[in-house]
Amino acid sequence: LEGGAPPPPEDPYADDPKDRLPALIVRSARPMNAEPPRELLTGSVITPTEVFYIRNHLPVPRIDEAQYSLRIEGQGIKTLDLSLDRLKAEFRKHTVTATVQCSGNRRNDFYAVKDVKGLEWGGAAIGTAVWGGVRLGEVLQAAGLDPGAEGVRHVQFFGADADGAGQAYAASIPVHRALDPRADVLLAYEMNGAPLTRDHGAPLRVIVPGTAGCRSVKWVTKVVPSGEEADSLWQRRDYKAFSPSVGWDEVDWDSAPAIQAMPVTSLICEPAPGARVEPEDLVTVKGYAWSGGGNRVIRVDVTADGGATWHTAELEGVEQEEGRNWAWVLWSAEVEVPGTPGEVEIAAKATDASYNTQPEAPGPIWNLRGVNCNSWPRIRIVAEEAQ
Amino acid sequence: LEGGAPPPPEDPYADDPKDRLPALIVRSARPMNAEPPRELLTGSVITPTEVFYIRNHLPVPRIDEAQYSLRIEGQGIKTLDLSLDRLKAEFRKHTVTATVQCSGNRRNDFYAVKDVKGLEWGGAAIGTAVWGGVRLGEVLQAAGLDPGAEGVRHVQFFGADADGAGQAYAASIPVHRALDPRADVLLAYEMNGAPLTRDHGAPLRVIVPGTAGCRSVKWVTKVVPSGEEADSLWQRRDYKAFSPSVGWDEVDWDSAPAIQAMPVTSLICEPAPGARVEPEDLVTVKGYAWSGGGNRVIRVDVTADGGATWHTAELEGVEQEEGRNWAWVLWSAEVEVPGTPGEVEIAAKATDASYNTQPEAPGPIWNLRGVNCNSWPRIRIVAEEAQ
Ligand SMILES: [Mo]
Ligand SMILES: [Mo]
Repeated sequence: LEGGAPPPPEDPYADDPKDRLPALIVRSARPMNAEPPRELLTGSVITPTEVFYIRNHLPVPRIDEAQYSLRIEGQGIKTLDLSLDRLKAEFRKHTVTATVQCSGNRRNDFYAVKDVKGLEWGGAAIGTAVWGGVRLGEVLQAAGLDPGAEGVRHVQFFGADADGAGQAYAASIPVHRALDPRADVLLAYEMNGAPLTRDHGAPLRVIVPGTAGCRSVKWVTKVVPSGEEADSLWQRRDYKAFSPSVGWDEVDWDSAPAIQAMPVTSLICEPAPGARVEPEDLVTVKGYAWSGGGNRVIRVDVTADGGATWHTAELEGVEQEEGRNWAWVLWSAEVEVPGTPGEVEIAAKATDASYNTQPEAPGPIWNLRGVNCNSWPRIRIVAEEAQ
Repeated sequence: LEGGAPPPPEDPYADDPKDRLPALIVRSARPMNAEPPRELLTGSVITPTEVFYIRNHLPVPRIDEAQYSLRIEGQGIKTLDLSLDRLKAEFRKHTVTATVQCSGNRRNDFYAVKDVKGLEWGGAAIGTAVWGGVRLGEVLQAAGLDPGAEGVRHVQFFGADADGAGQAYAASIPVHRALDPRADVLLAYEMNGAPLTRDHGAPLRVIVPGTAGCRSVKWVTKVVPSGEEADSLWQRRDYKAFSPSVGWDEVDWDSAPAIQAMPVTSLICEPAPGARVEPEDLVTVKGYAWSGGGNRVIRVDVTADGGATWHTAELEGVEQEEGRNWAWVLWSAEVEVPGTPGEVEIAAKATDASYNTQPEAPGPIWNLRGVNCNSWPRIRIVAEEAQ
């Protein structure tokens, strides 16, 4: 009766970072999931850290760097506990320019088909950064992991972020990828030349280039070679896709593989949907295109007449080795709008080095969790005579 | 005036094999290009050698195995001349089950859109065999090729087949692929447990799993590590794809990469187009599905109602390691035809481990050489009441 209402239960998100860019579009505040307006993506091939999408599954842990230690343990290796200083001192620094994309990116295009469960991301849950750190494979070899070891098939990662029951975020990747120097898998402590920010995994995170963002575990505290994939819902359930005809009653989660390498995709970032132009105007269309697995984007085609004419876009990117094309390309094309006033649909499609290309429509790739939406991006603008 | 017409000029194809399966559908006789009827593909995961499609660019060379020698030469290595006996004695035998597909497979679906230049293959210019031989990488290492060698970026292959001017068939692959034990690139002397036949490259051919058939050079006589791709039309021009809006007048051959890993594809092999069924019948639909680059086919969906309902097919294949899924899968699904009599279109689509999937229609991927047609396979059958 004294002092009014009882104090609220402790807020697990109370210590989340406060310095997030106000321009970010928040898809969920607790945990924080936010993406930039899509037109902020085409400013430069490297996405500024503050513009980079934030995808958190749980409250952001606060880690004292001086106390931090990474544990390496598991099948057939000796246990290592590595402070950040020791990691930096004992292993060579390696930098990789890599795009990271959430598997739920562009889920809004699936919502337009049929309801799904998941954050309604637009197309900006993707970004490209220069990651600096040490090679995971070299650390595993220092722990004595034999590349030909029988029975070791995966490398599991555990984050410092945990749910109310203390269950840590966890995911895994195939061991051959972890060990392959050409796969450029990092234990990263830098993003765009600065120490990681808290939202992006400080003080240490995994970066698995070409692979779904959910495998690039943030705030990593433990690395475990194993015969099995990580035993988490994020590995065994959430990031998998099924036929459009499979619903929640029929789904057999084990029947599909965890998403690792991602399919070829692209987005139109400019002009804005609904933009007004005049008939026969030349419109500059801009966007990004990316493919997983190290596949280079070799071409982006743009149409403003329903596919009767395709314009090959100019591509801008960073020079990377064949098969290690981890970074997206930004693209730009001049497209003439038709001579008759009315709505104009602009569509694009990217092709990668394996000549995989994007499917036309989201319907045939719709899946109950709404992951890996990579159908042709489409926007509608309006052509009208000047007043 | 004596003896009538002059003798014909010597026929370069006179010595081609005479024992080809009569059931093969000949797309060109000189050089021989032939594929089996598609329903012969679904009998077993391993395609019998006599049923395997034949894709020759030139007359079939006749090579005396006792005289045969493979030369390894080029940048930064010592020249080796290896007889077949020496190759077998000095290097371990390795077998790989791998699908080989012509880049022109399914070109007939492009012809239906707009004219292209190339053999009008149906969908059976593909097959799967157990290849036996030695690892190319081990032979290159025996010649002293350093995996980290500066300036070596490709490995070129030359065949014993040559045109009238003596120009040998040639193609190349990236050097990292040639050296990677997980890529399983072979110098093969066996197909399905028997020595190679002449049509399939006797006595020795290259097998590059997951990669366009044109890189698996037959009758190989020379292997050359180099800074450059092979300087042949087959490498620099024929096997590349461009936008549907790029014609013969605009094409810039250097603007697209040579096809290496191939995109995900599938075919419906049964029932036959035009087959008669009754309304509401359950029809068994069968086919193959495959993806390049070692990506496993994880799912095939089949529809008989324009995509309103998708049936997930049963898959049959061989057990292979993740990322080394070189062999196709055969698939089978029971699909109910609609209750109203009339034409029924059956369509299918495959999804691979990177969640790439097939585009719906051939128009948006049409290209002037007609390569890499991987749109949804479609057939039409007829539902009519029994008389
Ligand atoms: Mo994600
Ligand atoms: Mo081919």
